[in-house]
Amino acid sequence: MTREEKFQTATTELGHSFEGEIKIGGNYTSVVRHGDVVYVSGQIPRVGNTVMVMGRVGRAVGQTSLAQAKVAAEICAMRALALLRQQSGGLDAVTQILRVTVYVQAAEDFTQLSEVGDAASKVFYAVLGEAGVHTRTSVGVFQLPKNASVELDLIAAVSAKV
Amino acid sequence: MTREEKFQTATTELGHSFEGEIKIGGNYTSVVRHGDVVYVSGQIPRVGNTVMVMGRVGRAVGQTSLAQAKVAAEICAMRALALLRQQSGGLDAVTQILRVTVYVQAAEDFTQLSEVGDAASKVFYAVLGEAGVHTRTSVGVFQLPKNASVELDLIAAVSAKV
Amino acid sequence: MTREEKFQTATTELGHSFEGEIKIGGNYTSVVRHGDVVYVSGQIPRVGNTVMVMGRVGRAVGQTSLAQAKVAAEICAMRALALLRQQSGGLDAVTQILRVTVYVQAAEDFTQLSEVGDAASKVFYAVLGEAGVHTRTSVGVFQLPKNASVELDLIAAVSAKV
Repeated sequence: MTREEKFQTATTELGHSFEGEIKIGGNYTSVVRHGDVVYVSGQIPRVGNTVMVMGRVGRAVGQTSLAQAKVAAEICAMRALALLRQQSGGLDAVTQILRVTVYVQAAEDFTQLSEVGDAASKVFYAVLGEAGVHTRTSVGVFQLPKNASVELDLIAAVSAKV
Repeated sequence: MTREEKFQTATTELGHSFEGEIKIGGNYTSVVRHGDVVYVSGQIPRVGNTVMVMGRVGRAVGQTSLAQAKVAAEICAMRALALLRQQSGGLDAVTQILRVTVYVQAAEDFTQLSEVGDAASKVFYAVLGEAGVHTRTSVGVFQLPKNASVELDLIAAVSAKV
Repeated sequence: MTREEKFQTATTELGHSFEGEIKIGGNYTSVVRHGDVVYVSGQIPRVGNTVMVMGRVGRAVGQTSLAQAKVAAEICAMRALALLRQQSGGLDAVTQILRVTVYVQAAEDFTQLSEVGDAASKVFYAVLGEAGVHTRTSVGVFQLPKNASVELDLIAAVSAKV
C-alpha cells in the first residue's frame, strides 16, 4: 500500500474525515516549514468544529477512559499527518517524524500516559512505516484547550520541495 | 514602522522596559544558536527581578484572570523577542518564529488556554509581521517556576550572522 | 578529564549504571538524528526496569522531596547523555545541547521547578563543559509516565558521523 492508501485506511478505521483545509484562528498557523524541517502546531482531537474526546482521563466514574484517550491520540495524529500532507504535497515527502509531544489531560493518579502516546505512535508507524518512527515525550497536564483530553504536536523532516 | 519601532511601541503599551541584558542563573543559558536556528529558554513574565503575574489562572475569586494571563503572555513574548534581538544583533535578523509553546498555570476547569496563547501570538505578529507567524502549542500545567501564571519558550530561524 | 571520564564520575556519584542499550517499547524510539541535530525522547528516572524516584514533588508529608526530585533529574540527564553517547559513537560528538525540557510532577504549591531543572543542567555542564550549556524550560505537570517524579527530553547538535 502507498502511504496515501494507508492514510485512507487509518481514516476509515477512525470513522472520521481528515480531508479539507484545517483552519485555525489567531496570529499563528498550523504548519511552518524551515529548510527541510516542518513544525506542526498542537492538535486536539477535533473533527470539523467538534472536539471528539473531552474531559480528564482517568479510571473514576465520569472521567474519560484510557480507550477514549487513545482514540483522541489517534485523531490528533491523523490531523498532524493531514497537515503534513497538505503542506508537503503528499505524505511521500515526509522523510522522518523527529519529535512528538503528547499532552494528556490526566487525572491525579492516571499514570498510563505512555499508553496514550502509543496510540499516536501506532498511527504514525502505520501510515509512514520507518519514516514514522519518532522520539516522543508523553506528559499529563492539568488542562488543555477546549477541555480536550489530548493534545499532540510534532516536528518532522521532509524532502526538498517538488 | 521598523521592527525596532514596533518593539518599542509594544514595550510602551505594556508599560515595562525590556532593555538590558536578561540574566539567568544555573548551568544553562537563555539563548542558544545552532546554524540559523535559535532556541530561547522558557520565559516567565518577569520584569527585572519581579514576576509581574503570578498564581493560578481561572474564574474563581482569588485566581488570576484571563485578562491578567494575557498580559503575562505578552510580557513573556516581549522577553523572548528581547532575547532574540540581543542574540541576533537586532530584530531584523529574525526570519521566522518556528515554534512557540505556551504553558499556563491553569485552574482545573480553565480551558481558555488558546486565548492566553493568542496574546503572545499577537505580540509576535505585531512586531515581526509575517516573520512572526508561528506554530504553537498551548497547554495548562499544574505549576510554573516562581508561581508564574505563564511560561513561554520558542524556536526561531534567523539570518546568517552579520 | 575526558568527557567519558566525567560521565563515569557522574555515574559513580549517582551510584547507578547507565551502560548497556536503553530500550523502549512501542512504535517510537529513544533517539532520532536529522542532519547534525539529535532528538532524545522523554526520559524518566529509570535504572534498568525500576523507576528510582516516583510521586508528586512537594513539601507535604508523603510527598517526594526537592532533594529526591533533583536526583531524579540527574538520572534523567544521565540517561539522555547515555543515549547521545550510544547514538553518536561517544560523547565527544556532542557539539551543543540545544534545548532541554524538564517536566516535574509537582504539588499544587511546589514552585521550585527551576531548582529541579538546575540539577539536570549541572550534569550536562559537568560532563560536557561549554557544549553542555543549553536553553531550558521547566514546568510542573500533573502526572508523568509510571508515576515518575521527573521527565526530561532534549535536542542536541552533534558533529558529522565518523
